[in-house]
Amino acid sequence: MTKNLSENFLRDGERLDDLERNHLHIIQDPKRFCFGMDAVLLSGMVKVPAGGRLIDLGTGTGILPLLLSAKTEASELIGLEIQPESADMARRSVAYNVASGALAEGRISIVEGDLKEATKRFGKGHFAAVTCNPPYMEGGTALRNPNDAKAIARHEVFCTFDDVAREASGLLAVGGHFYLVHRPYRLVELMETLTRYKLEPKAMQLVHPSVDKEPNMVLLDCVKCGGRQLTVLEPLVIFGADGQYTDVIREKYGF
Amino acid sequence: MTKNLSENFLRDGERLDDLERNHLHIIQDPKRFCFGMDAVLLSGMVKVPAGGRLIDLGTGTGILPLLLSAKTEASELIGLEIQPESADMARRSVAYNVASGALAEGRISIVEGDLKEATKRFGKGHFAAVTCNPPYMEGGTALRNPNDAKAIARHEVFCTFDDVAREASGLLAVGGHFYLVHRPYRLVELMETLTRYKLEPKAMQLVHPSVDKEPNMVLLDCVKCGGRQLTVLEPLVIFGADGQYTDVIREKYGF
Repeated sequence: MTKNLSENFLRDGERLDDLERNHLHIIQDPKRFCFGMDAVLLSGMVKVPAGGRLIDLGTGTGILPLLLSAKTEASELIGLEIQPESADMARRSVAYNVASGALAEGRISIVEGDLKEATKRFGKGHFAAVTCNPPYMEGGTALRNPNDAKAIARHEVFCTFDDVAREASGLLAVGGHFYLVHRPYRLVELMETLTRYKLEPKAMQLVHPSVDKEPNMVLLDCVKCGGRQLTVLEPLVIFGADGQYTDVIREKYGF
Repeated sequence: MTKNLSENFLRDGERLDDLERNHLHIIQDPKRFCFGMDAVLLSGMVKVPAGGRLIDLGTGTGILPLLLSAKTEASELIGLEIQPESADMARRSVAYNVASGALAEGRISIVEGDLKEATKRFGKGHFAAVTCNPPYMEGGTALRNPNDAKAIARHEVFCTFDDVAREASGLLAVGGHFYLVHRPYRLVELMETLTRYKLEPKAMQLVHPSVDKEPNMVLLDCVKCGGRQLTVLEPLVIFGADGQYTDVIREKYGF
């Protein structure tokens, strides 16, 4: 049945991947951009109070709203995406999951648009949570091919981190949470920018490929107008001494 | 011979501890304050170019200048301490080590004084490295016994972190390094204050009691007027799964 159903939603070159969570699936195209461990690990940090609204800035193919529909009690999850092709794939993933019964109709909406205009579009202070897995690398304007989907997801072509923080702050109610994943080498700038927009980092977790290696991701949980006190969590280690995923990673992936 | 020699330097209640490094020893009084792992781990991060000058702000009984006389090629190491009793113990430790032959005469000087006046006293920009193991806890002015040596070492009685960063920045030459250890819960404030004084965090290491626990110390290496890019190092883990010190800790202690 899944096969027959999926034929209605998939285009050439696309595939349907099982998210191993509540029978949810996602449509991806390996030639464009497939979600990475960053999105999965970020989703493990997110909490939304029951009935709260969440928006994911630069949702790509919708991985975060899909995972968070299963992991949180958010009443409504919006995925905002500037690239029409990605937004279209995300919309078809949502439609597939609604058709398969894995997702309640209307719980996730995919909106095509520019995150730099998000507060103007959705209003100030109406969200309990904002998530973002932003492009990590600066200098996007110097790219040779700024229309490439992978380049847009990785480089700051359409937005800077300042844009992301400003809009997250605008969208959040006081006390709401902004969850993000980024590269540790930009941590000083991240903290400077976040606090300038009244997003106070309250929890931080560094992700290390192995326990003896430098981290290659940082997860941050910031509170709009939160008090100054950071909890740094235990390191999140991906591979154990045996070269296999650690138990904590298996648990987060739902293996 | 050590016993006879030490009698000339020790007062009642004091003891002479072996630093396990170049035959250096330190005079401590367990009723006052004994150095902790923070100072030892911080000393492992410090590099001073050959012939460079180093100053340790709030040196206590002089643990950092003593360890760094062995671990670096600094031409001169100054320990600045506001408490007369601690400065006196540090001076006697230096004299003991000179008398025993473990330390060259004149390489370490202990100066009694207030770190808040350090730049005025030592001039702007004359140091290649500044170190500080500052009091970690805010609200020192509310203490019941602000004259207690342990309280002064732990709480911000005589100086705030802002004072420490301001003076470190004033003392350092452009390109010089400020090394400090602090509590992770204050990391956002630390970064904000350091960058305000043009001390750019370039390397950071979190110290975890064990690999599955939150860190209780953060080591920072900042460069005066350095460019913006932080290297977060692998976690520094104190105890292994067997409950024993990890190899990296044994190596740092010189066991």
